[in-house]
Amino acid sequence: MEYRKIKDQDKDGDVVADDIESLHGKALSAGNFATLGGSSSEKSKWKRKSIVTLALTVLTSSQAILIVWSKRAGKYEYCVTTANFLVEALKCAFSLAALGRIWRNEGVTEDNRLSTTLDEVSVYPIPAVLYLVKNLLQYYIFAYVDAPGYQILKNLNIISTGVLYRIILKKKLSEIQWAAFILLCAGCTTAQLNPSSDHVLQTPFQGWVMAIVMALLSGFAGVYTEAIIKKRPSRNINVQNFWLYVFGMAFNAIAIVIQDFDAVMNKGFFHGYSLITFLMILNHALSGIAVSMVMKYADNIVKVYSTSVAMLLTAVVSVFLFGFHLSLAFFLGSTVVSVSIYLHSIGKLQK
Amino acid sequence: MEYRKIKDQDKDGDVVADDIESLHGKALSAGNFATLGGSSSEKSKWKRKSIVTLALTVLTSSQAILIVWSKRAGKYEYCVTTANFLVEALKCAFSLAALGRIWRNEGVTEDNRLSTTLDEVSVYPIPAVLYLVKNLLQYYIFAYVDAPGYQILKNLNIISTGVLYRIILKKKLSEIQWAAFILLCAGCTTAQLNPSSDHVLQTPFQGWVMAIVMALLSGFAGVYTEAIIKKRPSRNINVQNFWLYVFGMAFNAIAIVIQDFDAVMNKGFFHGYSLITFLMILNHALSGIAVSMVMKYADNIVKVYSTSVAMLLTAVVSVFLFGFHLSLAFFLGSTVVSVSIYLHSIGKLQK
Repeated sequence: MEYRKIKDQDKDGDVVADDIESLHGKALSAGNFATLGGSSSEKSKWKRKSIVTLALTVLTSSQAILIVWSKRAGKYEYCVTTANFLVEALKCAFSLAALGRIWRNEGVTEDNRLSTTLDEVSVYPIPAVLYLVKNLLQYYIFAYVDAPGYQILKNLNIISTGVLYRIILKKKLSEIQWAAFILLCAGCTTAQLNPSSDHVLQTPFQGWVMAIVMALLSGFAGVYTEAIIKKRPSRNINVQNFWLYVFGMAFNAIAIVIQDFDAVMNKGFFHGYSLITFLMILNHALSGIAVSMVMKYADNIVKVYSTSVAMLLTAVVSVFLFGFHLSLAFFLGSTVVSVSIYLHSIGKLQK
Repeated sequence: MEYRKIKDQDKDGDVVADDIESLHGKALSAGNFATLGGSSSEKSKWKRKSIVTLALTVLTSSQAILIVWSKRAGKYEYCVTTANFLVEALKCAFSLAALGRIWRNEGVTEDNRLSTTLDEVSVYPIPAVLYLVKNLLQYYIFAYVDAPGYQILKNLNIISTGVLYRIILKKKLSEIQWAAFILLCAGCTTAQLNPSSDHVLQTPFQGWVMAIVMALLSGFAGVYTEAIIKKRPSRNINVQNFWLYVFGMAFNAIAIVIQDFDAVMNKGFFHGYSLITFLMILNHALSGIAVSMVMKYADNIVKVYSTSVAMLLTAVVSVFLFGFHLSLAFFLGSTVVSVSIYLHSIGKLQK
């Protein structure tokens, strides 16, 4: 539970939504981004895209490994809200540090200055709102679905991301890429199957509706972040991140006051923290930044593939680290995911 | 066990192998078939292909339903060898009846006459030999794999059929069609997953080797039948079937003498037969003929897709007939198989 909450915030917390109409009006097509952002050559773009994708994959899988490690080491009694706040604060600090370096080397320009307009900054609090709504729903969905069932249902995010990516960002996926996306969802779910997975089929109607709503919220969040970050392609990503994370900090501070004010006051802010808690916070901060970078230099589709591959990597690494056994379902799911990645790349060429 | 033996013979018993060298020499390419067999229009060809494929799908799924029915009704004590013999005899009778009709309507021609040359008929006994080898191996593989595990490993047939189809018949599959074929194998296996499926991962090395050898034998058998039947495209399929089944009868008669001579002599040929036994024999005979027709008018790839879809259909029908429950794995596998079929058809267009 604790992990999931941090993780969900991390993935969706750096999400900014804008008014859909305004986005439509400005026609944020792939072509626009390509021409506006084209300061470096295609090759260096590809290299940057590969590096951020690789970073996201490695960070996401090490995230899951840290969780297993922390579970093995016993339960932690820290406040989830304080950990979430620290993740946001750390991301803010990293963004400022990166900006400081850039200012020293390149000087302050229109694109990397921190000061902003109301028009630019007004959309940045929205991800935090989306996050709050999703977190609220998350408490309700456990009335209908158990935790492993919820992990299975979360794969609906893959489909919702694809659909909203198409609708909101108006980017086209080829027929083969759509097929690949359905396969990615089926493959990831297959890889996670265990003997008790069939319980999820007994989910009542309300549970399905909530799972779909949450998948849509999560998809919206991801696609909106991409829209907002790419809306100003020349704006420095660290400035964009800074504003995203500032509002993340603010909303998490409110959450601390509402939910855990007494605990923090009586036991202290860092009560129950251990080395592994700090490592998890560091990891979540870094992978949050990696998500933003993938949104800036690649897209939500790459993000989904990256986190899916991370899920498979985690399982393989866990075999060596923790002596886990891989199931036949895992091998079948991995095969389907691999074919999906292949088809996605083929589909791109034939588009 | 009893069912599997009938079924395996049925699928692979109508298989004829030729000398690979001679096939290569005669360059049985897809193009050849298309020009040689082109007496009717494309549309009627497509219609005929659809009808035989549909027939195979329906017959194969009703086959599986008959098995479930027979299992529910209790065990049968009939000799498997006599049932196999009757299947071949019935197929022979059907072929002769069809030929009789054709002779009455069209007269005896070069293409539909029953008499044959040694050159033509010499390859027809080979399927029976392949069948014997495979049946022999089947007894040995159960030393390493249990029956449900064997059902899982049999999905390797899909891959071996694709590979041998490419190598022996020299027909090309597009990249997307290869991807679709891997997905078909993964999807069918996923749909068959149950909580004990992981046992198959503990299969010892010898078991894997035997499973692969059996998959290759099965694939060889299927692809060879297609090669032989299509080698003489103008030759009437019923004549080709007649000769295939005559040798099937002969080899099954030998099997009766070797394995069940005493039982048949003491208890009689039809000892232990019931209505359902006769229905299963009739069904196997008809689906055996449907396999031949698919080989003649379509190909092994269509056959593999048809029997895979039949497997899924069976499960769905069993929900209504026997109150079976569909697992999450079944839905995921069905999704992957559906996408595979879609990709196969897309891949054909783009080839």
